[in-house]
Amino acid sequence: MWNKKKLPKLIATDIDGVWTDGGMYYDQLGNEFKRFNTSDSAGVLFCHSLNIPIAIITGENTEIVSRRAEKLNIDYLFQGCTDKLLVVANLCKEINIDLSDVAYIGDDINDIALLKKQGFLLRLKMLLIM
Amino acid sequence: MWNKKKLPKLIATDIDGVWTDGGMYYDQLGNEFKRFNTSDSAGVLFCHSLNIPIAIITGENTEIVSRRAEKLNIDYLFQGCTDKLLVVANLCKEINIDLSDVAYIGDDINDIALLKKQGFLLRLKMLLIM
Amino acid sequence: MWNKKKLPKLIATDIDGVWTDGGMYYDQLGNEFKRFNTSDSAGVLFCHSLNIPIAIITGENTEIVSRRAEKLNIDYLFQGCTDKLLVVANLCKEINIDLSDVAYIGDDINDIALLKKQGFLLRLKMLLIM
Amino acid sequence: MWNKKKLPKLIATDIDGVWTDGGMYYDQLGNEFKRFNTSDSAGVLFCHSLNIPIAIITGENTEIVSRRAEKLNIDYLFQGCTDKLLVVANLCKEINIDLSDVAYIGDDINDIALLKKQGFLLRLKMLLIM
Repeated sequence: MWNKKKLPKLIATDIDGVWTDGGMYYDQLGNEFKRFNTSDSAGVLFCHSLNIPIAIITGENTEIVSRRAEKLNIDYLFQGCTDKLLVVANLCKEINIDLSDVAYIGDDINDIALLKKQGFLLRLKMLLIM
Repeated sequence: MWNKKKLPKLIATDIDGVWTDGGMYYDQLGNEFKRFNTSDSAGVLFCHSLNIPIAIITGENTEIVSRRAEKLNIDYLFQGCTDKLLVVANLCKEINIDLSDVAYIGDDINDIALLKKQGFLLRLKMLLIM
Repeated sequence: MWNKKKLPKLIATDIDGVWTDGGMYYDQLGNEFKRFNTSDSAGVLFCHSLNIPIAIITGENTEIVSRRAEKLNIDYLFQGCTDKLLVVANLCKEINIDLSDVAYIGDDINDIALLKKQGFLLRLKMLLIM
Repeated sequence: MWNKKKLPKLIATDIDGVWTDGGMYYDQLGNEFKRFNTSDSAGVLFCHSLNIPIAIITGENTEIVSRRAEKLNIDYLFQGCTDKLLVVANLCKEINIDLSDVAYIGDDINDIALLKKQGFLLRLKMLLIM
């Protein structure tokens, strides 16, 4: 059996380098691409089957991420964030959970504050392996 | 000599992560890309030289896959499928073969039902190496 | 010193999987991409500095390859080829060299006939390392 | 403590193969792509926090690189360069530093002259690890 008491109540996640391979594809005409992975679709379904909502929190601000979030039914989307810890702290208040209930997934310098505060430290792929 | 008695009578295959590297490339304008591989072209020719038809069965529904299927002369294309096992079972009836004659190639959670039912379990690249 | 007597008099080369990573990128609108590598630019300059012309011979027929060939000042470009050996044999006659003077670079099933006939068997990256 | 006396006074850098994976993505319509990496954003911030300016010097001439340079607040951008050493030497005069104060990052044949002249030889990722 899965021990629900030990599960996070929210998964908050960075995008670039976490949901993508870190690539920022630029073209000649002002367009931009990101490379997501089909496997994350199953990861999101798995979290939702455990009633764990997912929040995307990213410093960038692109239509790319909006569409991916919509496609995968992501629960919360915050773009253009400079203080990610503040964003997550506010969301925690709003949905009545504690910062220590959050599993944060990040890989960049502006993710460090959040990674230090959280109760869970893991990557989505690890979740899927369990 | 190649033992035709042991060959599958149909190769049914998922697309994302099997014919592609799993990447879902999104741009800023609503366009999407997949990365296929030139080698699969020879794989399809090889199967067709053995009179084995190929069916693509995918949960997604894109022009991308339609074009790739057309380019490689894929025999059957089913997109937007939720119950892949049902789709393959119906196709088996239509072309008078048994589910155990099908080699199914898949890598995702919605491929598991089919992978358990089939008589053959292999990836296209393995076929090519033989 | 470089022994010119042992050098090929023509480098003939496939494109997909040799000048690219094998990826065939398809989008939703009928557009297609290939991923070349910046290093081949130096490879071509190196061959030209030894007065070795380069011929691209590919089964595909795309604007992509035309542009890349033009960018790198490729000497001969043959697209949409079914019988690559015939194409190279004709070119050899035209420029008065023997098939055994050709170094052919290919990685696919339709490259085998040529790979068996030629006097040189090597990949461009090997040339660069020498 | 960080020894400022040993730091370069300018980081000059090639683009293709250094800031990208070396890929030159071509499409059917004359458009082109490069794949940058989100991590270089932190690398630039890190250099700027040490008051080290960054100069991009590339033989290519694309809107792609202009946009990436603008996005990351790169200090100097030189495109379409044939003699990179001359470009850097002129920039050194302009900002009153010596060539031996420059850390140059390059990976191609036209980078060799610069790589031999400079006082520092390193890649951006190495800087980040320190």
